[in-house]
Amino acid sequence: MVRLALRIEYDGTDFAGSQSQRSQRTVQDIVEAAIAQFTGEQQRVAFAGRTDAGVHAIGQVVAIDTESAHDAITWRDALNHFLPEDVVVREVVEVAAGFDPRRDATSRRYRYRIEDRGGRRPLTRRAVWQVRRPLDAAAMAEAVAGLPRTARDWAAFAGPVPEGYSTVRELICCDVQRVGEQVTVEMEAGGFLPHQVRRTVGALARVGSGRMSPEGFAALVDGAPGCAGPTAPPQGLTLVAVRYAPGTVEWETGTER
Amino acid sequence: MVRLALRIEYDGTDFAGSQSQRSQRTVQDIVEAAIAQFTGEQQRVAFAGRTDAGVHAIGQVVAIDTESAHDAITWRDALNHFLPEDVVVREVVEVAAGFDPRRDATSRRYRYRIEDRGGRRPLTRRAVWQVRRPLDAAAMAEAVAGLPRTARDWAAFAGPVPEGYSTVRELICCDVQRVGEQVTVEMEAGGFLPHQVRRTVGALARVGSGRMSPEGFAALVDGAPGCAGPTAPPQGLTLVAVRYAPGTVEWETGTER
Repeated sequence: MVRLALRIEYDGTDFAGSQSQRSQRTVQDIVEAAIAQFTGEQQRVAFAGRTDAGVHAIGQVVAIDTESAHDAITWRDALNHFLPEDVVVREVVEVAAGFDPRRDATSRRYRYRIEDRGGRRPLTRRAVWQVRRPLDAAAMAEAVAGLPRTARDWAAFAGPVPEGYSTVRELICCDVQRVGEQVTVEMEAGGFLPHQVRRTVGALARVGSGRMSPEGFAALVDGAPGCAGPTAPPQGLTLVAVRYAPGTVEWETGTER
Repeated sequence: MVRLALRIEYDGTDFAGSQSQRSQRTVQDIVEAAIAQFTGEQQRVAFAGRTDAGVHAIGQVVAIDTESAHDAITWRDALNHFLPEDVVVREVVEVAAGFDPRRDATSRRYRYRIEDRGGRRPLTRRAVWQVRRPLDAAAMAEAVAGLPRTARDWAAFAGPVPEGYSTVRELICCDVQRVGEQVTVEMEAGGFLPHQVRRTVGALARVGSGRMSPEGFAALVDGAPGCAGPTAPPQGLTLVAVRYAPGTVEWETGTER
């Protein structure tokens, strides 16, 4: 028996999220079906992070156990033969028997893209949040420049969480950049609360449209009473990378595009 | 009765092309249905250029006649209300009664995007041609630098054409540029032969992959016997702009993004 880590990409548009759900099309079910077609092995695969319906990934990591002795390239090519066009395995590497893609991850990086060209655009609709009015990216960058890079309570930017669930997370980085008619927010942290990235982006969009000041944003993060604002929609969000301690998962081609 | 020109964008992926076809989903039928829903008027709309199944547009121009007295903004917003998410009307302007979007066009501009990151990528699959191996964009640029900007016979790069159909066209520009892992070919001409852009790109990809020299490409254009190579697939192609003589169609926001 060997344990393999797979780095996968998917277009989340036509999935009801990453995790298996009855009578829904999910990334997990599709990947498990491809494995069964290739090896005949029925098994549950473990994901590094859950992604919601409509959320994309270019650096999702999943782990599987197999009795099959095929090499990594054969695994990759065979699974890609069986996978539909909206999921692809980019890389396969062998990992230690105890590897847990979720618990062993040291950080996750997400990218959120907003397009502010005005109105809806058919060609980018699946990959960005299209907003009507131009955003002030400089104000958004100012707002995130003050974000604390230490462990703190992110409750103001979390979706509903179970009682007793810790809402303390440590942000590693958060950057806002404009390129042409797109504003990109990149966030990396050891872990994120449910909807934390999309709620943070929702609040930043309020800053960018002048409905909240950078100081108001900072006050929310500091725990001031108030509402972060609407959650940004899923289609702008991509899980870019999941990182592990050196030696845990050695990708040949790097973890980020 | 007034005549209106509409600048429309569409994601060609789920269309069987621009022109109406029995029992197929086409851009023309969808636009005509939206007009009928808005005004009750049943009519055939005229397109500036045909696009094949899978080919996109950000600057397609269509013309319609109407008895309806709504202003341009109302027309745009109302049609967008009825159009599906893969088509949008960007702008509406009144034009002269005799305006013919196809015959009156002075030039068309197309953009073709190739992604050479290796293998298939779910998130860009609808908008680029994904090739396995890196392309030498400098060799491709060298090949097009020598293209004649005068009227000449493009038969070597045409799909099948009816007998007696002139294959003489005048190229206005053709540029190759690399940005990151994408190589973009932009071509503008008074008019193009069927499949001319995709065949030119197919030949340029052979240059980029070292299977044809820039000189071999130039010889093909000069009428040397030989094959331009496979036609590039439709999903990389976008109709970017259709241009008219000054005063014919006065868009407020320009014709190109």
